[in-house]
Amino acid sequence: MFITETQVRVRYAETDQMGVVYHSNYFPYFESARAESIRQLGFTYADMERMGVIMPVIEVQCRYLRPALYDDLLTVKTTLKELPVHHKIEFHHDVINEKQELLATGRIILYFMEAKTMKRTTMPPELLEKLQPYFT
Amino acid sequence: MFITETQVRVRYAETDQMGVVYHSNYFPYFESARAESIRQLGFTYADMERMGVIMPVIEVQCRYLRPALYDDLLTVKTTLKELPVHHKIEFHHDVINEKQELLATGRIILYFMEAKTMKRTTMPPELLEKLQPYFT
Amino acid sequence: MFITETQVRVRYAETDQMGVVYHSNYFPYFESARAESIRQLGFTYADMERMGVIMPVIEVQCRYLRPALYDDLLTVKTTLKELPVHHKIEFHHDVINEKQELLATGRIILYFMEAKTMKRTTMPPELLEKLQPYFT
Amino acid sequence: MFITETQVRVRYAETDQMGVVYHSNYFPYFESARAESIRQLGFTYADMERMGVIMPVIEVQCRYLRPALYDDLLTVKTTLKELPVHHKIEFHHDVINEKQELLATGRIILYFMEAKTMKRTTMPPELLEKLQPYFT
Repeated sequence: MFITETQVRVRYAETDQMGVVYHSNYFPYFESARAESIRQLGFTYADMERMGVIMPVIEVQCRYLRPALYDDLLTVKTTLKELPVHHKIEFHHDVINEKQELLATGRIILYFMEAKTMKRTTMPPELLEKLQPYFT
Repeated sequence: MFITETQVRVRYAETDQMGVVYHSNYFPYFESARAESIRQLGFTYADMERMGVIMPVIEVQCRYLRPALYDDLLTVKTTLKELPVHHKIEFHHDVINEKQELLATGRIILYFMEAKTMKRTTMPPELLEKLQPYFT
Repeated sequence: MFITETQVRVRYAETDQMGVVYHSNYFPYFESARAESIRQLGFTYADMERMGVIMPVIEVQCRYLRPALYDDLLTVKTTLKELPVHHKIEFHHDVINEKQELLATGRIILYFMEAKTMKRTTMPPELLEKLQPYFT
Repeated sequence: MFITETQVRVRYAETDQMGVVYHSNYFPYFESARAESIRQLGFTYADMERMGVIMPVIEVQCRYLRPALYDDLLTVKTTLKELPVHHKIEFHHDVINEKQELLATGRIILYFMEAKTMKRTTMPPELLEKLQPYFT
């Protein structure tokens, strides 16, 4: 497994009139956590797009257990349970607050696609070789 | 079943650099579709909050089949398959573009809660009696 | 002058924990009002992008007089005071609620630019000829 | 003067189909920079709200000189030029990328208001005494 942790501070813009983070605003947190996850391998999603591979989101799921509040410093724990062999990759995210309470859990499925042809492809070898050590 | 349709025009702000609507931006479309759904019954979610009942989102899921594009006039079809008897309500949403292509399907679970006590409650009778005719 | 009016319903996602529309969320309302403004002329901003002309925002200003609230049906009045002759165009927006209260006034300056070269250009003749009758 | 610097990483969600950060998404960057600015004084905006004082945004302005791009690590320089004596406070923000290019400059005016009465008030003494040393 490949597990990373990144932190995100809740912005006022992300709250709603219920006084909590609006439910869809967790997805940019997850996106940012995936980006930091890849960055910790010495690669970036931006690099991958420059190489012509994009990763559209195909399916998302999120369960909300406790509310995230304005100015909370959240930890997003990102887990890649399996090394993707085909065009599909699945990330799991746990959102934890400073009191160590689990606030939400998400699951995001993305595809590797060639930007030019919009055809499915596989993970670029540059990223694959950095991930492989975590799955042996 | 209670089924309604509402329309939403894609804003530039909702696109991302892939040239499509960013995945989390479908959830405000769903929220807006639920609000219009309730409005068509002669009630509003805003009324319900003024009565002291709030509806936090507990779980979401969305599958993305085809991209929504800038300026698309989307139809969001909202379905309530079962009349909620307890604190839980589940909506299904289908997003369809002007070519009648299905772009995405979502499922949203919300709870009825008393704003003051933050305890679970049931659907306000004012809304229940308007919904009941659709489920007999 | 060219003046149009369009309506926008406030989404829950656009409120913040102060119980009002977060200040930056007025800008997508303005964007949407500009798009509808052009559409009323029988042209669309999407058409313009397909013709290779983009309109980046160069400067914005907004004054907030009264809060917009969840579920408010806002009218955005969009005014083009002068027909642009060079690369610059300036829109004025007034946001009015159902009680006819003025909530906010905005001013947005955009440039016409060629997407390919990223050089400044002028308004496409297709749009200019539709606007000209309003300025004579 | 009181000057602070904070960093923000551009999210994919914040870009639009022009391939740049959508203009209104700079305002949450500014908001976050103001929050960090106050935090560096050993106080937080969240503390202030808990004390019953809120700070609605009254006016904003922003000029966009160069685009911010996905994954850019931006520095937001926040300047308080004058110590506010009445209900009004004005912040200046400069957004700079990793190449030290100035991307945007913003100016935000907020009021201090009592949440309960919605009447104008002045900066809480707890914050004032921390700021005063920078203005003598």
